[in-house]
Amino acid sequence: NTAFRIAVFPGDGIGREVMTPTIEILRLLQQRIGGFELRFQEEQAGAAHYVRTGTALPDEAMARAGQADAILLGAMGMPDIRYPDGREIAPQLDMREQFELFAGVRPVRTQPGAPNPLADPRAQALDFVLIRESTEGLFAGRGHTRYDGPADRPTAAHDTMTMTRKGSERLFEFAFRLAARRRERGHPGEVTCVDKANVIGGFYFFRQVFDEVAARHPGLGAGHMYVDACALNMVRRPWEFDVLVTENMFGDILSDLGAGLMGGMGMAPSADIGERHAVFQPCHGSAPDIVGRGLANPTATFLSAAMMLDWLGDQHGVPDCGRAGLVLDRAVACAYADGSLKPAELGGTAGTAEVTKAV
Amino acid sequence: NTAFRIAVFPGDGIGREVMTPTIEILRLLQQRIGGFELRFQEEQAGAAHYVRTGTALPDEAMARAGQADAILLGAMGMPDIRYPDGREIAPQLDMREQFELFAGVRPVRTQPGAPNPLADPRAQALDFVLIRESTEGLFAGRGHTRYDGPADRPTAAHDTMTMTRKGSERLFEFAFRLAARRRERGHPGEVTCVDKANVIGGFYFFRQVFDEVAARHPGLGAGHMYVDACALNMVRRPWEFDVLVTENMFGDILSDLGAGLMGGMGMAPSADIGERHAVFQPCHGSAPDIVGRGLANPTATFLSAAMMLDWLGDQHGVPDCGRAGLVLDRAVACAYADGSLKPAELGGTAGTAEVTKAV
Ligand SMILES: CC(C)[C@H](C(=O)O)[C@@H](O)C(=O)O
Ligand SMILES: CC(C)[C@H](C(=O)O)[C@@H](O)C(=O)O
Repeated sequence: NTAFRIAVFPGDGIGREVMTPTIEILRLLQQRIGGFELRFQEEQAGAAHYVRTGTALPDEAMARAGQADAILLGAMGMPDIRYPDGREIAPQLDMREQFELFAGVRPVRTQPGAPNPLADPRAQALDFVLIRESTEGLFAGRGHTRYDGPADRPTAAHDTMTMTRKGSERLFEFAFRLAARRRERGHPGEVTCVDKANVIGGFYFFRQVFDEVAARHPGLGAGHMYVDACALNMVRRPWEFDVLVTENMFGDILSDLGAGLMGGMGMAPSADIGERHAVFQPCHGSAPDIVGRGLANPTATFLSAAMMLDWLGDQHGVPDCGRAGLVLDRAVACAYADGSLKPAELGGTAGTAEVTKAV
Repeated sequence: NTAFRIAVFPGDGIGREVMTPTIEILRLLQQRIGGFELRFQEEQAGAAHYVRTGTALPDEAMARAGQADAILLGAMGMPDIRYPDGREIAPQLDMREQFELFAGVRPVRTQPGAPNPLADPRAQALDFVLIRESTEGLFAGRGHTRYDGPADRPTAAHDTMTMTRKGSERLFEFAFRLAARRRERGHPGEVTCVDKANVIGGFYFFRQVFDEVAARHPGLGAGHMYVDACALNMVRRPWEFDVLVTENMFGDILSDLGAGLMGGMGMAPSADIGERHAVFQPCHGSAPDIVGRGLANPTATFLSAAMMLDWLGDQHGVPDCGRAGLVLDRAVACAYADGSLKPAELGGTAGTAEVTKAV
C-alpha cells in the first residue's frame, strides 16, 4: 500500500494559515517524486470549534483520525477560550492519551543561515533530538487534582506524577532505536536520560528502567543528566547532545527551550508517535495576535510534514515517501542557507507566503 | 545589634576552595566599611562529612545554624556519594525544610564584560530575579514516593506535587515586596507567575492565589506565563523580565537556565529566605573534576555573600552592612567591566586567586 490517508486538523488561528501552504507543498512533492499518494481528509477540532459546537474534539473526528495513516495538526487552543474549570482547549493532549502517542519527538536543529540566539558559532549547526514522554509523568494527573479544605477556597492542591515501567520502557526503547538510526547518519548514537533522580523517587525509578533498557543496547552510548544541568547545558554546549529522553513535563519545558535555540516556535516541528498512530504538529500556538496578517512562520509545519513523510515511509516500507520527506527537509535548509530569508518571527520581514515561496 | 553570627558551612569539593577567599573579602569589607561586625562560626556538613561520620548534617550543626543570624554555604554533595536509597547528599534541602526557607532568590544578572552565551547585545545587561518556592511543590513529595507492584521491581512510581495556599501566599507576598524594592531602583516592578495552569490543576490553584495576592498590590504589575513559554523567552528576550515567581521544580530548572545565561553556575548566586532564617549559597556544585586545581570560580560565592550583607542590613536595620553588600556587588561588576577577566569556567584562564584579586 502506497496510498496514505492523512487526517488534517487545521486547528486555530495561524494553525489554519500555515496548513494551506503545507498541503500545497505536500501535493507538489507527491507529484514530483511519485511512488506514493496522500489522501487528505480535513477534520475540525480546537478552540474555535469548541465555541461553535460545545465540543473541542468530536468523537467522530477522533475515530476517523484513528483510522487514518497519519494525523497532521495545526496549532490548537486559544488563550481566552477555556473549559469551565479553567483548562485550555488542547485536543492534542486527548489524542496523545487516546492513541497512546508516548514518544514526543522534538528535533532541535538550527537552520544554518537563519538568525540564531546563541553567540557561539557551533550553535549554527545544532542537530539533536529531545524525546518527551507524552502519556504520563506529571500530565497523568491531568483532571485528577485533589484539594484540601473548602471546595470554593481550597487550602492545598495535590497532583500526582506517575511513571510506569511499561511507559518508561517503551519510551527508552524508542529512544535507543532512534539513536541507532541517527548513528547511521553519522551522529554519536548516545542517549541521555534527563531526570531529577537525586531528589524525586519516581525519577530514580525512571533512571533505573533507563539503565535496564540501555543494557539491552550495548552498542549505543547511554548517560544521565539532571534536568537542571540539562537546562544549563542547552545554552552552554547544546552541540554536544545527541538524543535526550525525559518525562512529559520536563520535556515540555526543555523542548520549548530547544525551540528557543532554533530561533522560535515557528521553526520547531514535532511528532507524537505511538505503536500505530502518529500526530505531526508544529510547536507553536495559535498566535491570535498575528492572525490574518500573513506573518505566521510556516517552517515548523513544513518540517513536521517532512517528519510525517519520513515516518510513513519507514512504517510502511515506502522509500519514495521517506525520500519526499528528506527533500522537503532539505528544501527548508536550502531556503535558509544563504542567510537572506528572515521570517518576521525571527526579527525579519518574511511572512507566510515568502517563506513558502523560498522553500 | 550590629554584630552578626554567620554559620559557615564550607561543604564539599570546590565549595571549600571558594569559601576561604569569600571570608577574607568579608573580613576586609567589615574593616574598611565598619559599622557592623561578622562573627564566623565554621560548621561541617555535606557528602565528605557523611562519609566520615555517617551523618550528612549533624543535628547540633543544624541547631547552631538556626541560632545564627545568617548561614553561608559552599557547594554540597558529590555525584558518587549517596544515601542508601540513591538520593544525593543535599543538606541544603534539609535546611530549606527545617527553617522554612520558602523563597529561593536566584538573581539572573549578567556581568557586562564577561563572556555571554547569547548573541543579542541586550543580553549583556540582564537583571531579573527568579523566585523559586523552596519548601513544597514537587519537592514536597521527597522521600514519600509510592510504588505499585513488587518492592524489588515496581511497576509504577507516584510522586505528589503539593501547593498550599499558605505556602503560595507567602511566596507571592515576598515576590511583590521584592518587586517594590526593585522598582525603587528603576526596574518596572512587574511580577510574572510562571506555571502550567492550562493543564495541571495545582498550577491553576497556584495562579488563582497569585491573582489574589496581586490584587493587594495594585501599584505593581502582575502577569502570567506558562513555564514552557518562559523557558523559550529566557533565550529569546530575557531582558524583558523583572521578577519571575514559580514552583520549586520549575524554579530549579529555570534558575539553572538563568545561570546558563550568566555564563555558568560559577557566576550565579542564590539565597533561600524564610521568615527569620536565610541561607546563602552559590548555585554551582562541588565539581570534583576540578578540585585542587585552583580553577574554581568564586564569583557566585562572592555575590551570594553580597546578598547576605544586603539581607542582614535590611533585616536588622544596619545600613552600613547593606552598603558593604553593595560595595562587594560593585567590586564584582568592576572586576569584569573591562572585559579582561575571563574565568576558566567561561572559557578563559582565570582561576580562584585571579578572580579574587580582581575583585
Ligand atoms: C498546549 C499544551 C497543552 C501543550 C503541552 O503542554 O503539551 C504544548 O505546550 C505542547 O508542548 O504541545
Ligand atoms: C542539589 C539539588 C538537590 C538542588 C535542588 O534541586 O534544589 C540544587 O539543584 C539547587 O538548585 O539548589
